[in-house]
Amino acid sequence: MVTSFFLFLNQKIRITLVMFIAFGTLASASPDAYAQGEKEQAVASVKVVATGYTAGVESTGKKPGHPQYGITYSGVKVHRGQVSTVAADTKLFPIGTLLYIPGYGYGVVADTGSAIKGHRIDLYFETVKEVYAEWGKKTVTVQVLRKGSGKLSQAWLNDINRAVEAGKPLPQAYIES
Amino acid sequence: MVTSFFLFLNQKIRITLVMFIAFGTLASASPDAYAQGEKEQAVASVKVVATGYTAGVESTGKKPGHPQYGITYSGVKVHRGQVSTVAADTKLFPIGTLLYIPGYGYGVVADTGSAIKGHRIDLYFETVKEVYAEWGKKTVTVQVLRKGSGKLSQAWLNDINRAVEAGKPLPQAYIES
Repeated sequence: MVTSFFLFLNQKIRITLVMFIAFGTLASASPDAYAQGEKEQAVASVKVVATGYTAGVESTGKKPGHPQYGITYSGVKVHRGQVSTVAADTKLFPIGTLLYIPGYGYGVVADTGSAIKGHRIDLYFETVKEVYAEWGKKTVTVQVLRKGSGKLSQAWLNDINRAVEAGKPLPQAYIES
Repeated sequence: MVTSFFLFLNQKIRITLVMFIAFGTLASASPDAYAQGEKEQAVASVKVVATGYTAGVESTGKKPGHPQYGITYSGVKVHRGQVSTVAADTKLFPIGTLLYIPGYGYGVVADTGSAIKGHRIDLYFETVKEVYAEWGKKTVTVQVLRKGSGKLSQAWLNDINRAVEAGKPLPQAYIES
C-alpha cells in the first residue's frame, strides 16, 4: 500500500522527497570553517559529544567547603537556569561562547575539564540525580532472553558470570534453565 | 545525482527499498504480547527507557556501612560484569529475567526502584563517573549563537539570566554584544 502510494506520486514530488532525504543531513554549517574563525559572529552548527556534570566531588574533585567549590574556570559561579554554565575545549569554543544545546537549553562556555578536549562539552546540572534523569536517559529496545521466575540466587549469578566469555553469546544452558 | 541514480533503478529495486524503509521499524515482537505472558520462553524485544544508577547514596539513599549497601531487592549483590544486575518493574520483567541491553551488555533483573515503573529500567554501574561516561553521553548538534572573547563576568551572566524569559529566544542584544 505504501509502495503503491509512493509510485502514485508524480515525478516532481518523488524527486523532492528523495532530495529531502538525501540532503537533510548536510544542511548545517561546517564546524571546521567555524573553528578556523572564518565566521566569528555568524551562527554556526557544530556536532559535539555532550555529557553531564555537577560541582560535586565525582566531577571536580572538590567537596563543599573547598574555596573553589562551584567556581568555574572563568571565575563565575556554576549556574543552571535560562542560560547555564557549560564546559568546553576553549580552542573550539572560547570562554563566553553562547550555545543552544538541544535537550538542555542555552549554555555559556564558562568551564573546562581534563576530559573535555575537542568536540566534547560538559553540561552543568545541580545534582547527580538530575544528570541521570535529564541527560542520561536513553530509549533502547532490549532483548528478553529468559523470563525470570521471580527469584535469583547469588550462586546462579556467580556461575553465569564465570561461564560467559567477553564478547561471546550466553551459553544456551543459562537461557533455557 | 542521487535523484537520477534512484530513478535509474528498476521498479523492483525501488519497491524493495521503499518497503525496507517503511517496514524496518515494525520488525520487533510486540511488548504487550510479552507482558501478557503469551511467549514465556520466547525471545521478545521490548522498548524501554533506560537510565544508569550506582549503589551510592544519590541512587539508593544508602551510604557505605549501611547493612543493605550494595544489596539488590532480590538479595544478590550489585554486579557489573559479563552479566550485570539491573532494576526493572517486576510486573514487566520478574526478578531473574535475562536481558540483552544494547550499549550496556547482558543484564539480569535483580533490583527495583521507586521511579522504575512500567517500561523503565535502571542499569547498574560501579561509579557515578561511569554512569556519566558510559551511559549519559549524547551526540548533539549545538548552535553557536556568539563566539566568546575568552572572558566572562558574573555581572553579564546574571544580566542575561534575568533578561531571558523561559521558552523565549535570547534577546538579540546579548548575541551581538
